[in-house]
Amino acid sequence: MKNIYLDNAATTPVAPEVIKVMEPYFNIYYGNPSSVHTPGQDAARAVSEAREKVAELIGARDEREIIFTSGGTEADNLAIKGVAMSLQDRGKHIITSSVEHHAVLHTCEYLEKYLGFDVTYLPVDEKGFVDPSKVEEAIREDTILISIMLANNEIGTIQPVKEIAKIANEHDIYFHTDAVQAIGQIPVDVEKLGVDLLSLSGHKFNGPKGVGALYIRKGVKLAPQMSGGAQERRRRAGTENVPGIVGLGKAAEMAAHNLEEKRLKLKKLRDKLINGIENEIDEVYLNGPRGEDRLPNNVNFCFRYIEGESILLNLDMMGIAGSSGSACTSGSLDPSHVLLAIGRPHEIAHGSLRLTLGYNNTEEEVDYVLEVLPGIIKKLRAMSPLFDSASE
Amino acid sequence: MKNIYLDNAATTPVAPEVIKVMEPYFNIYYGNPSSVHTPGQDAARAVSEAREKVAELIGARDEREIIFTSGGTEADNLAIKGVAMSLQDRGKHIITSSVEHHAVLHTCEYLEKYLGFDVTYLPVDEKGFVDPSKVEEAIREDTILISIMLANNEIGTIQPVKEIAKIANEHDIYFHTDAVQAIGQIPVDVEKLGVDLLSLSGHKFNGPKGVGALYIRKGVKLAPQMSGGAQERRRRAGTENVPGIVGLGKAAEMAAHNLEEKRLKLKKLRDKLINGIENEIDEVYLNGPRGEDRLPNNVNFCFRYIEGESILLNLDMMGIAGSSGSACTSGSLDPSHVLLAIGRPHEIAHGSLRLTLGYNNTEEEVDYVLEVLPGIIKKLRAMSPLFDSASE
Repeated sequence: MKNIYLDNAATTPVAPEVIKVMEPYFNIYYGNPSSVHTPGQDAARAVSEAREKVAELIGARDEREIIFTSGGTEADNLAIKGVAMSLQDRGKHIITSSVEHHAVLHTCEYLEKYLGFDVTYLPVDEKGFVDPSKVEEAIREDTILISIMLANNEIGTIQPVKEIAKIANEHDIYFHTDAVQAIGQIPVDVEKLGVDLLSLSGHKFNGPKGVGALYIRKGVKLAPQMSGGAQERRRRAGTENVPGIVGLGKAAEMAAHNLEEKRLKLKKLRDKLINGIENEIDEVYLNGPRGEDRLPNNVNFCFRYIEGESILLNLDMMGIAGSSGSACTSGSLDPSHVLLAIGRPHEIAHGSLRLTLGYNNTEEEVDYVLEVLPGIIKKLRAMSPLFDSASE
Repeated sequence: MKNIYLDNAATTPVAPEVIKVMEPYFNIYYGNPSSVHTPGQDAARAVSEAREKVAELIGARDEREIIFTSGGTEADNLAIKGVAMSLQDRGKHIITSSVEHHAVLHTCEYLEKYLGFDVTYLPVDEKGFVDPSKVEEAIREDTILISIMLANNEIGTIQPVKEIAKIANEHDIYFHTDAVQAIGQIPVDVEKLGVDLLSLSGHKFNGPKGVGALYIRKGVKLAPQMSGGAQERRRRAGTENVPGIVGLGKAAEMAAHNLEEKRLKLKKLRDKLINGIENEIDEVYLNGPRGEDRLPNNVNFCFRYIEGESILLNLDMMGIAGSSGSACTSGSLDPSHVLLAIGRPHEIAHGSLRLTLGYNNTEEEVDYVLEVLPGIIKKLRAMSPLFDSASE
């Protein structure tokens, strides 16, 4: 049986090099970095080195601008709640988009519910792009934060973050970007982008699960959200996940090193998959843009007349792991909020398939997918009452 | 050079058996538990098995009462902020003690600052005990939560949690206990204790760092604090730290299995250390109680005339890792809030040394500490201006 993993946007295998550097921190250098003794200081040094590597990957000028978290979700929560609670006396308005990850959307809803914030959820166009001029129009006297993702997790749209950050900056408003899907896929530089806060997650680029980071530009005010000890310069309490942080550092180092090679390889496989599916199967709709504005590893199609879940289960039986929308909302019967936002009608939004490539995938694997997918779609459509009536 | 680790309250080495079960989840069973495909479902099953093991360790009736978090600090934050935000319409008063971990105290301060809560911080007696009758006296019409730790992280005092939980229950008030230091040291049963919420942390009992859990009794209302995806039955968003959770499950299984053996072994070593220090060194004061009311692994002394930090550095040079108060506040020049709460004057609270045993420690190691510590104290006192003037 084949074992083809095409769900790298959900999570990735930890690279062997990353596992290797983590290992000694489980039971050899196991000290608590806050302890003054030698085992503690060994751990503290490892955390500090990892911080430098993450800073380097995203072009942060000072490694103290990196705060380690338990993942991308916590980084988004800390950025948005942290700024909101810190600046609520200045204003209670936030601007975001309707295609953000739930870690951003539900954080905004939390602030609406518990702290009386008002949030503008900007629409996107049919490819999923936020229009920078609409961001500017939405700015009010009491706007304290703009949060727009760098790249969409479902349909791969790379947002014009540099332009939006510039607008935020001109209006003296903090700008946060959820870069969880972009890191390790495309070049990301916080200085060139001009962002104030940026979230990333280790397990999306061959680092471990359970660890992420928030870039906080020097001088940005932020109320800590994990209350407790004095870790992370008093910005995130809790004993540091030392092996996880060391692994994230190594993954960052590797991502910085092989980014361009990986990007070109995945883009080629991506376009082969997109072209193959469009050539072999009728009534398919690519979700998101083509070319450079799309994440190099993302393929997302709607297949008319059928459910995404049925495609997934049939692919799984052939040894292919794909996804229908994002992993975080699977199990839900609602169609993807992203597909609805780009204007797909309900009945089509249900029939989506996301295939996301990783550095381990090969051209042979893509060929195999293109070999079996048309048959699966044909079989499912033959069973679909919607397809029957359409072809009558 | 010796390598004697006596800081097991700060963190513990991950047990080899725990590392072994975690390993395949880094790059073999690396799926996202939210994914419907086979790699995802393999991961989901592992998370579910770990949940059962944690439930079993603490006597939870239903494994769905266990929510995985990034550690003890997040569990405390989720319990206290979660209940507070959920019940704030009923009342905004919380009762806790002055000797809680900062993860509890600073969480209470966050609620005072951002949500207008009023918190009663109960005093303790000279051994660190909270008086249940004082808890009852502090209850008001608007009290919605009582949070008292099971065992103190600095001085090892085991609180009368069963009595306090009973009082909370009689007044229809939720009761939370931070059991981070107690789990794996003493028997803990949520049903026998009658608690509604209980926090624990993996790395305190030979599990991995970066993972913990909150027990939430069925029916307890709680507002999620990590906003995002639908993980953990919508109570804690963020991709599950699968290897960490699997490791926590194994650590829980091991703790359940060897608890009594470990407890008796450590208690013997603890009492040997306490008696040895009291016999060999003048003007020492044991912090916390003796006997069954003290954690079996905790030794904490104040040494008059000298700083805890100097003792630590001298022990470290002899290959012994100890601590002065809790790891989370080291680097701070303030004396321990716990030692001040039990009535130690400032100048004595500064001179504390905590030695906390783990299952790897041996009697020979304790003998070695008793061999070198008196000399270190003598040397430091000879250098101390306080000691000079006292002996004149």
